[in-house]
Amino acid sequence: MRVIAGPEKKSRVMSEKERLVTAYHELGHAIVGHLLPNADPVHKVSIISRGQALGYTISLPTEDKFLTTRAELNDTMAMTLGGRAAEELIFEEITTGASNDLEKVTETAKQMVMRFGMSERLGPRVFGHDRGQPFLGREFNSEPDYSDEVAREIDDEIRRIVEEAHQTAAKILKEKKGELDTISQILLERETIEADEFVALLDGKSPEEVFPPDEEETEEPSEAAAEKGSAREGARPRVQPKPGLAGGGAAEMRSDEP
Amino acid sequence: MRVIAGPEKKSRVMSEKERLVTAYHELGHAIVGHLLPNADPVHKVSIISRGQALGYTISLPTEDKFLTTRAELNDTMAMTLGGRAAEELIFEEITTGASNDLEKVTETAKQMVMRFGMSERLGPRVFGHDRGQPFLGREFNSEPDYSDEVAREIDDEIRRIVEEAHQTAAKILKEKKGELDTISQILLERETIEADEFVALLDGKSPEEVFPPDEEETEEPSEAAAEKGSAREGARPRVQPKPGLAGGGAAEMRSDEP
Amino acid sequence: MRVIAGPEKKSRVMSEKERLVTAYHELGHAIVGHLLPNADPVHKVSIISRGQALGYTISLPTEDKFLTTRAELNDTMAMTLGGRAAEELIFEEITTGASNDLEKVTETAKQMVMRFGMSERLGPRVFGHDRGQPFLGREFNSEPDYSDEVAREIDDEIRRIVEEAHQTAAKILKEKKGELDTISQILLERETIEADEFVALLDGKSPEEVFPPDEEETEEPSEAAAEKGSAREGARPRVQPKPGLAGGGAAEMRSDEP
Amino acid sequence: MRVIAGPEKKSRVMSEKERLVTAYHELGHAIVGHLLPNADPVHKVSIISRGQALGYTISLPTEDKFLTTRAELNDTMAMTLGGRAAEELIFEEITTGASNDLEKVTETAKQMVMRFGMSERLGPRVFGHDRGQPFLGREFNSEPDYSDEVAREIDDEIRRIVEEAHQTAAKILKEKKGELDTISQILLERETIEADEFVALLDGKSPEEVFPPDEEETEEPSEAAAEKGSAREGARPRVQPKPGLAGGGAAEMRSDEP
Amino acid sequence: MRVIAGPEKKSRVMSEKERLVTAYHELGHAIVGHLLPNADPVHKVSIISRGQALGYTISLPTEDKFLTTRAELNDTMAMTLGGRAAEELIFEEITTGASNDLEKVTETAKQMVMRFGMSERLGPRVFGHDRGQPFLGREFNSEPDYSDEVAREIDDEIRRIVEEAHQTAAKILKEKKGELDTISQILLERETIEADEFVALLDGKSPEEVFPPDEEETEEPSEAAAEKGSAREGARPRVQPKPGLAGGGAAEMRSDEP
Amino acid sequence: MRVIAGPEKKSRVMSEKERLVTAYHELGHAIVGHLLPNADPVHKVSIISRGQALGYTISLPTEDKFLTTRAELNDTMAMTLGGRAAEELIFEEITTGASNDLEKVTETAKQMVMRFGMSERLGPRVFGHDRGQPFLGREFNSEPDYSDEVAREIDDEIRRIVEEAHQTAAKILKEKKGELDTISQILLERETIEADEFVALLDGKSPEEVFPPDEEETEEPSEAAAEKGSAREGARPRVQPKPGLAGGGAAEMRSDEP
Repeated sequence: MRVIAGPEKKSRVMSEKERLVTAYHELGHAIVGHLLPNADPVHKVSIISRGQALGYTISLPTEDKFLTTRAELNDTMAMTLGGRAAEELIFEEITTGASNDLEKVTETAKQMVMRFGMSERLGPRVFGHDRGQPFLGREFNSEPDYSDEVAREIDDEIRRIVEEAHQTAAKILKEKKGELDTISQILLERETIEADEFVALLDGKSPEEVFPPDEEETEEPSEAAAEKGSAREGARPRVQPKPGLAGGGAAEMRSDEP
Repeated sequence: MRVIAGPEKKSRVMSEKERLVTAYHELGHAIVGHLLPNADPVHKVSIISRGQALGYTISLPTEDKFLTTRAELNDTMAMTLGGRAAEELIFEEITTGASNDLEKVTETAKQMVMRFGMSERLGPRVFGHDRGQPFLGREFNSEPDYSDEVAREIDDEIRRIVEEAHQTAAKILKEKKGELDTISQILLERETIEADEFVALLDGKSPEEVFPPDEEETEEPSEAAAEKGSAREGARPRVQPKPGLAGGGAAEMRSDEP
Repeated sequence: MRVIAGPEKKSRVMSEKERLVTAYHELGHAIVGHLLPNADPVHKVSIISRGQALGYTISLPTEDKFLTTRAELNDTMAMTLGGRAAEELIFEEITTGASNDLEKVTETAKQMVMRFGMSERLGPRVFGHDRGQPFLGREFNSEPDYSDEVAREIDDEIRRIVEEAHQTAAKILKEKKGELDTISQILLERETIEADEFVALLDGKSPEEVFPPDEEETEEPSEAAAEKGSAREGARPRVQPKPGLAGGGAAEMRSDEP
Repeated sequence: MRVIAGPEKKSRVMSEKERLVTAYHELGHAIVGHLLPNADPVHKVSIISRGQALGYTISLPTEDKFLTTRAELNDTMAMTLGGRAAEELIFEEITTGASNDLEKVTETAKQMVMRFGMSERLGPRVFGHDRGQPFLGREFNSEPDYSDEVAREIDDEIRRIVEEAHQTAAKILKEKKGELDTISQILLERETIEADEFVALLDGKSPEEVFPPDEEETEEPSEAAAEKGSAREGARPRVQPKPGLAGGGAAEMRSDEP
Repeated sequence: MRVIAGPEKKSRVMSEKERLVTAYHELGHAIVGHLLPNADPVHKVSIISRGQALGYTISLPTEDKFLTTRAELNDTMAMTLGGRAAEELIFEEITTGASNDLEKVTETAKQMVMRFGMSERLGPRVFGHDRGQPFLGREFNSEPDYSDEVAREIDDEIRRIVEEAHQTAAKILKEKKGELDTISQILLERETIEADEFVALLDGKSPEEVFPPDEEETEEPSEAAAEKGSAREGARPRVQPKPGLAGGGAAEMRSDEP
Repeated sequence: MRVIAGPEKKSRVMSEKERLVTAYHELGHAIVGHLLPNADPVHKVSIISRGQALGYTISLPTEDKFLTTRAELNDTMAMTLGGRAAEELIFEEITTGASNDLEKVTETAKQMVMRFGMSERLGPRVFGHDRGQPFLGREFNSEPDYSDEVAREIDDEIRRIVEEAHQTAAKILKEKKGELDTISQILLERETIEADEFVALLDGKSPEEVFPPDEEETEEPSEAAAEKGSAREGARPRVQPKPGLAGGGAAEMRSDEP
C-alpha cells in the first residue's frame, strides 16, 4: 500500500523550511556518526525523499560483524539522536520527524539493559520473555516477569543511557556548528552528498574543491546504492530489531503523512 | 447505521440555546486558531449540523506538510480547546459536546510525550508498543512496557501540556470576548461564515461592510468544500491519528445523540 | 427468556411491605426530579410491575436535546439516587432494588470525569480507551492507559460527584417528607399517577381535588406511553449509555428475581 | 458425571466422627437461622448425604420476595457461617466442609459492597464490570475499573461485613451451646429433623414429647421436599448468584471428595 | 510419551550418591508422617524408580474420608516437606528432587487460606475465582478479585503455614536422626520396606528381627499395591487438587530428567 | 530458514578482533568450569563457528544424573557467566555475544527460587503457575499468583544468586589471567582444543608438550562429538529448560546476525 502510494507523494512538494530542517537533521546524523569512533562510517547523505522518508543518511560497517560492543551501541545511539539534536541546536524547536529515530534508540537501550546485561546496576541477566516467537502459547501468559521495582530500575537505566547518547550528540554538534551550517547549505543545493565528498567538506575543503565544475550536475542516487540501503531497510519489519543495526542502514527523517 | 439515521436527525430541531452554545463553541475554535501563529488558518465556520456534528470549524494548512513542530501541535491543541473555553467563559457551564475535542487533545498530548519525545522531562525516547499493527501477535503481549512511576510522569506531562493549551485558549478568548459575542450573533443569523468574512469581522468590520446586501442570502455550504472537509474527516477512523491533523480538518461540536 | 418468563412472574404477588417500599422509592425519584431545575420533568409514576421492574418513574425532556450540561447530569444523578434516598429516610434500611440506579449513576459520573472533562481537578482530557468499538483489535490491548495515581484521582472525583448527588437528593426529601408520605399512600391505592396529578398533589391539592369521583377508576397505563418509555428503555443495551439519558426514560425499582 | 458417580459414593460409609461434625455443622446453620429475625425460617435439617453434600439445612422464605434488605443479607450470612462457627465452638478445629458456605458469604458481601451500594464508606455506586454477559466483547477488556486504593477499601468492607456475620453466629451458638449439644445428638440418631420438630426441641421439649413412640421410625426425606430444595439448588450454576438466596435453599456440608 | 520413554530410563543407572539421597528423602517423608498424629499412616517406602519418580512413599488413610481438618492438612504438609528436611539435615545441601513436594505444599497452603478460610487473619471467606471451570467465559475476566494489600497478606499467611510445616518436619527428623540413618542404610540394601517392617524398625527392632533370613530376598513391589498407589496418583492431573490428598498417595522423589 | 541460511554465513569471515574476543569468551567458560568442583568437566573448546554460534565450549557430566544440587546449579551458572567475565577482564568492554548465556543463567536462578525452593528467604514453596502445559485453559488466567512484594523479593534473590555466580567467575579468571592469555592465543591458532589438551595446558604444559609436531594439523571437529553436543543442544527449544543442563551441553558465543 505504502509502495503504491509512493509515487503520488513524490509529486507533492516539500516546503523550503522542511527541506532546510531535513538537511540539518540528516547532517546531524552524519557529523555525529563520523566523529564517534564506534559508529559505522557514513556512506551517503541525501534529502531526496524516498517513500515516507524525507531524507536519509546511509552508514555502512567496514566489515561483516558478528558481535556488537557496548561502545558501538552507545555511539550508534548518539548518531541516531544526532538528527533531533541538530534540530534543537539550530531551530530551538523540534518536529515529529524524529519518531523513527526515537523508536530505534529506545529499542537499543532497552535491549542493552534487558537482553545484553549491559547495565551494571541490573547485572548480567535478562528481563522479560523473549518476544521472538510470539505465537508459541507462552506468549499469552500475562504473569509479570519482574516486580514494579525492577521495572522502575529498568526505566531509570534506559533513561540514563538514552540521555547520555543525546548529550554526546548535542555536544559534538555544538562544537561543529560551523560545519553543520556550511554543509547543510551545500546539501540543500546538491540534495545528495557521497561519503568522500562529506569527509572532504568536513575537513574544511571548499565546495569548489570537492565538486569540480565538470562533475557539477547532480547524479541521480544510483539504483545499486539505493538497493543496498533498501536491502538493509528490509530488515526493519522483523519483530525484534538487531541492535547492531539500530543506527546503521539508513537513519531517515520521517514524514508524518501516512 | 449512523449514515442511514442521518437524514432523520436533520429533521429534528436544535433549540435556540443549543444553537447559541454551538455558535460560541465554534467561534471559540476559530478565534483561538486565527490568533495563534502556528495553527492552520480558519477556512469556514458553521452551525449547520452535519451527521453527528452540530457545527464545525474547518481549518486548512496553507501548504502540504510533512513535518509538524511542537509549536504547531501546541497551538492546534489550544485551538481545539477553544470551543470548551468559550463555553466556560460565556455560560460558566460546560456541555457534553466537546468530548471529541477532548479526545483529539488527549491523543495529541499523549503522542507528543510518548511518540515524539517532546517532553524534556521524559527525554528523547518512545513509550509503549506501537499500536499501528494490532494483529501482529506482539499486540497480545500484555507485559508492561514501563513502570508505574513512568506512567505517573507521563500522566503529569500530558496534564501539563493539555492544561497549558487550555489556558492559552482561555486567555485569548477573555481578551477577545467582545469579538466573540459580536461574531457569534452574526453566525447565529447567517449560519455559515467564510474565511475572509471571518477575518474581516475579527478586524472590526461591520456586518454591513462584510456582507453587502446583494449577497445577503446565505449560500449553501458548497459540496466541494464539504467534500474536502469530509475527505480529511475520513482520516479519523485510522487507529493512530496523525497529530498534525489533530485540530485541522474540522473541529466539530458533537451531539450526544447516537 | 426474560420476556417469556414475564407473565409467570406477574402472577406472583408482591408483599404489602414491598409495595410500600416501591411506592416510596418511585416517589423519591419523582419528587427530587421535579424539584431540581435541570432534570427532565416527571411524566408518570407507577408501582405496576413491568418485567423485572417493580415500579417505574418515567421522565421526559421537554424538547429534543443534542447537548447535555454538567448541571443537567448532576440533577439527573440526584433524581436517580432519589429512590435509594427515600428508602434510607423512611425505613432507615436499604434494599437490593436500587442496583440499576447505582449502575446508571456510576456510569454517568465516570463519563463526566473520563469522557467529558467535567472534573476541574483532572482537566479537559479523556481517560481510557473508547469502548465503543470492542472488536477492533485495539481492544485486546491491555496496556494501561493511565497510572494508578490517576486512577485514584478518578475514583476520588467519581466518589465526590456521586456523593454530592446523593446529598442533594437526601436534603430535598428530608424537606418534603410530608409530601413523600402523603403521595406514597395515594400511589399505593391508585398504583399509577400521571404528571399533572403528581404536580397537583405536590402543590398540596387533596386527592379529592386531583381525582374527581367520576374519574376514580384507575386507567391502564396507555400502550402509547408505555411504548415510548419502552422505546427509551430500548436504548439501555447499548455498550456506552448516553449520559443524557442516565436518569431519563424510566428509573425502575428492580426485583432481584432473575 | 457427578450424578452418575453419586450412587457409588453412597455405598461408602461416613465415619462416626464425620457424622458428628456434620450434625453440629447443620445445627449451627439451623439455630443461628432460627434466632435471627431476618433469615428465612428453617424447613428441615438432615445428615443424610445427597450427592456431594454430607448434610443439609433447608430454609424457605415465608412468601415470594422481590427485594432483599441489608438486614436480611446480614442475617443470612450469619446463618451461612453458623456451620463453621459450630465446628469452632465444639471441636476447636475446622474442616474443609465449609468451603461452599464461605463462597456464598464472600459473594454476598462482595455484592453488597460492589453492586448494591450497601457500604456507607464506599457510597451509592457500583464497582467493576457487570459479569452477567461474559461474551459481549466488553468482557475481554482488561482495563481496570478502579484503583488499587479502592480495591483495598472494598476488601476492608468485605472483611468487616463477613467478620460481623461470623461474630453474630459465634455469639448465638455460644449462648445456645446446650441446645446445640442436645439436638445434635438427636439429629445423629434420627438423621432428619423437620421444621416443627426443630422448633419444639429448641423450645426445650424432650425428644419423647417431640417424637411420640408410634412415629418413631425415621421417615425417608420426602421426594417432594427434596425436589423443592433441589430446585433451589438448581440455581447455583448461575454466573451471578442472587444474594437473596445466598443462605436460603440448602446450606450444605460439603465433602471434599470429587 | 512419558510412558513410552519410561523403560528406556530404567536401564540408566542411578549413582550411589543419588540412591543415598533418595533413601534419606523417602525416609524423611515416612518418619515425619508416622510420628505426626494427623497424617495418613505409611504403607510402603521404596527407592525403586517408577517413571519420573526415583523413589516413593505411599501413605493410605485408615478409612474413607469426606472431611479434612486443618490439623490433618498441617501434618500432611509437614510429612510432604519431610523429604527436603532430611536432605538438609543429612547433606546440608538440597536438590531439585523435591519440586513436586513443594508444589503440593504450596497448593495446600494456598487452598487453606484462599478456599477453606483456615487463616484467622484473613477470616472465613474465599479469595480469587474458582478455577474449576476454566472455559466458562468468566475465566477470561482479568479484573482483579482482591487488592495487592490482600495479596500480600495471603502471601504472608502461606509463608507462615509452609514455614511451620517445614519446622515441624525438621524438628522431628533432628530428634530421630539415629533412626533416619539406620533405616536409610536398610532401605539402600532392601530397596523397599513395607508398613509393618517400617514400624518395627522405627521401634528399634534390628534388621535381623524384622527380616528373618528365609524372607531375605527382596520382593518385587506387588502389582496390586503399585496399582493402588498409581490409582491415587491418577488424581494428580485434576485442575484443582483436593487438599486431603496433598501428601497422601505417593510422595515421590522426582528426577529432573524429562 | 536459519538452517538453510547457515552455509552462506560460513562463507563470511569473522574479523581477527571477533575471533580474539570469542577465544577469550570460550576459555572463560572452560577455565571457570574446570576449576569449580560442581560444574561438569570440559569436553572441548572451539572457535569454529556452528550456525549462530561463533564458538562453543562443550561440557559433559561424568555420569547420568537424576538430581541436581544447589551447589551444581551455582557452579554451572558461574561457568556460564565465565565468558562475559573474561570479556570484562581482558577488554574492559562487553559485547552482545553473551545474551544466550544470560538467558540460561536467569532461567536457572529463577527456577532455583521459584520451582526448587532454594532461597532460604522465600522458603520451601513454588511461585507462579507451572508453564509446562500452556494450552490447558488455566494458562489464560491472568490472576496474579503472588503479590508485588513477593515479586520484589524474588527479584532480589535472583539478583543475589546471579551476582554471586558472576563474582565467582570474575575472581577465578582474575587469578588465572596468565593461563587465560596463554591458552587463548593457542586456541586462536588451533581453533579447537580437546579436554585432555586443555587440562594439560592449564597445568602449565607448553604447547610443544601438548601438541607433538606429528599431530600438529588441526583435526576437524569429529562428527560424532558434534552430534553428541548437538543432541544436547536439541534440548533447548523445550519450553521449560531443565536447570541441570543450564550450562552443560554447549555454552556458545552468539552472533547477533539472524
